[in-house]
Amino acid sequence: MKIILVGATGTIGKKVTATLENDHELVKVGSKSGDVQADITSSESIEAMYKQIGAFDALISTAGGAHFGPLANMTAADFQKGLNNKLLGQINLVLIGQHYIRPKGSFTLSSGILSDDPIRNGANLTTVNAAVNAFVRAAAIELENNVRINAVSPGLVEDSAAMLPDFPGHALAKMDVVVRAYLKSVLGAQTGQVYPAV
Amino acid sequence: MKIILVGATGTIGKKVTATLENDHELVKVGSKSGDVQADITSSESIEAMYKQIGAFDALISTAGGAHFGPLANMTAADFQKGLNNKLLGQINLVLIGQHYIRPKGSFTLSSGILSDDPIRNGANLTTVNAAVNAFVRAAAIELENNVRINAVSPGLVEDSAAMLPDFPGHALAKMDVVVRAYLKSVLGAQTGQVYPAV
Ligand SMILES: NC(=O)c1ccc[n+]([C@@H]2O[C@H](COP(=O)([O-])OP(=O)(O)OC[C@H]3O[C@@H](n4cnc5c(N)ncnc54)[C@H](OP(=O)(O)O)[C@@H]3O)[C@@H](O)[C@H]2O)c1
Ligand SMILES: NC(=O)c1ccc[n+]([C@@H]2O[C@H](COP(=O)([O-])OP(=O)(O)OC[C@H]3O[C@@H](n4cnc5c(N)ncnc54)[C@H](OP(=O)(O)O)[C@@H]3O)[C@@H](O)[C@H]2O)c1
Repeated sequence: MKIILVGATGTIGKKVTATLENDHELVKVGSKSGDVQADITSSESIEAMYKQIGAFDALISTAGGAHFGPLANMTAADFQKGLNNKLLGQINLVLIGQHYIRPKGSFTLSSGILSDDPIRNGANLTTVNAAVNAFVRAAAIELENNVRINAVSPGLVEDSAAMLPDFPGHALAKMDVVVRAYLKSVLGAQTGQVYPAV
Repeated sequence: MKIILVGATGTIGKKVTATLENDHELVKVGSKSGDVQADITSSESIEAMYKQIGAFDALISTAGGAHFGPLANMTAADFQKGLNNKLLGQINLVLIGQHYIRPKGSFTLSSGILSDDPIRNGANLTTVNAAVNAFVRAAAIELENNVRINAVSPGLVEDSAAMLPDFPGHALAKMDVVVRAYLKSVLGAQTGQVYPAV
């Protein structure tokens, strides 16, 4: 299978890479790192990435930044960070990618547990994560040629344990649990699903 | 109670107006209509609105546009419509309004049934509505001075019955059911809730 992994060099992406790269033709993408460079906040850059890579079977996104900080001084510009990057960036990988993906291909996006379990400073992430999950459910009923789409919604992962003080009472998600959720989406047959990985 | 109603002249807003205007000091806002003009897509315009109106007890938003059309030819620019208007527009009413609202005041935003029940052409609305609902849940745990926030999630309302062909199998929400959901949010004591009005 030819699989594009956007965010391949990140905390989650490198574990997904390690699991997939032996059995599949994996194209690693990052804005600065990877085999191919693309910036998910730019339509031109996404379009150029797909043109360069050509037909593919699966796209996984483990990319997506957002704003983290108190609501009390949050501004529209702060809020735009998550909307432009983690939300519209990932959605635009699908809007453009639907014209390049092979029939029966799949898209797998990343959301996160804050969608349903908010913490202090997390309003932007909660909003964006829930929006990614909802987009997946909506897009699944319209994608053509049996193309599928799912989201993986990880808890705070063990390799990001440094952030645990911001997540009181949260459990750390084991990396292999998280990686298997991406595998389920890519190698399984379901669509319109949000896989919690906690 | 001094209540700001953004979108007072719209399909839903005018029914909310009719119910509230006798018992409360209602300030009707629209981008072109109402007592005060403000454009929710502009931070400067929202800030000017709050400065002009002064301290208030409740803000209701029954405004918010989004893109409606097939996923197959949807672009990032199409998708931005809902993100900038119905999503960030309403959120920015809260981000800025938190600095003007009286203690124990409330914000009530509008989402919609497509958040959880997607239809063809509705990917932008599903995404934005779910995002509004999630923002409300996140903001509720951070707002200070006992300020509350809820969302009303109406079904397709009876006064918008012309759109029913786009909503196969959906029931029309009665206007009085929808209006009562806004009353529950403003006059009740709950926070972080999404009130379905179907
Ligand atoms: N870590 C967690 O505990 C956790 C939990 C729940 C959800 N998540 C979500 O999972 C995703 C991955 O998280 P992570 O912790 O693995 O992130 P990370 O360590 O910060 O890695 C981000 C990856 O995305 C790439 N990237 C960054 N900006 C990009 C852009 N504009 N265009 C294309 N690629 C870009 C980076 O490569 P370059 O530097 O080369 O751009 C890197 O490979 C994020 O959406 C995050 O919110 C993470
Ligand atoms: N109608 C339904 O069946 C239904 C169902 C579920 C959810 N909803 C949601 O409920 C909300 C209201 O729907 P509706 O059908 O009543 O809408 P509508 O009839 O189109 O009315 C929109 C109202 O918002 C104002 N407005 C528009 N753009 C604005 C802007 N940029 N800044 C400030 N005010 C603005 C309009 O006044 P001006 O023209 O003066 O700007 C008008 O008062 C929307 O968020 C909609 O998505 C509606």
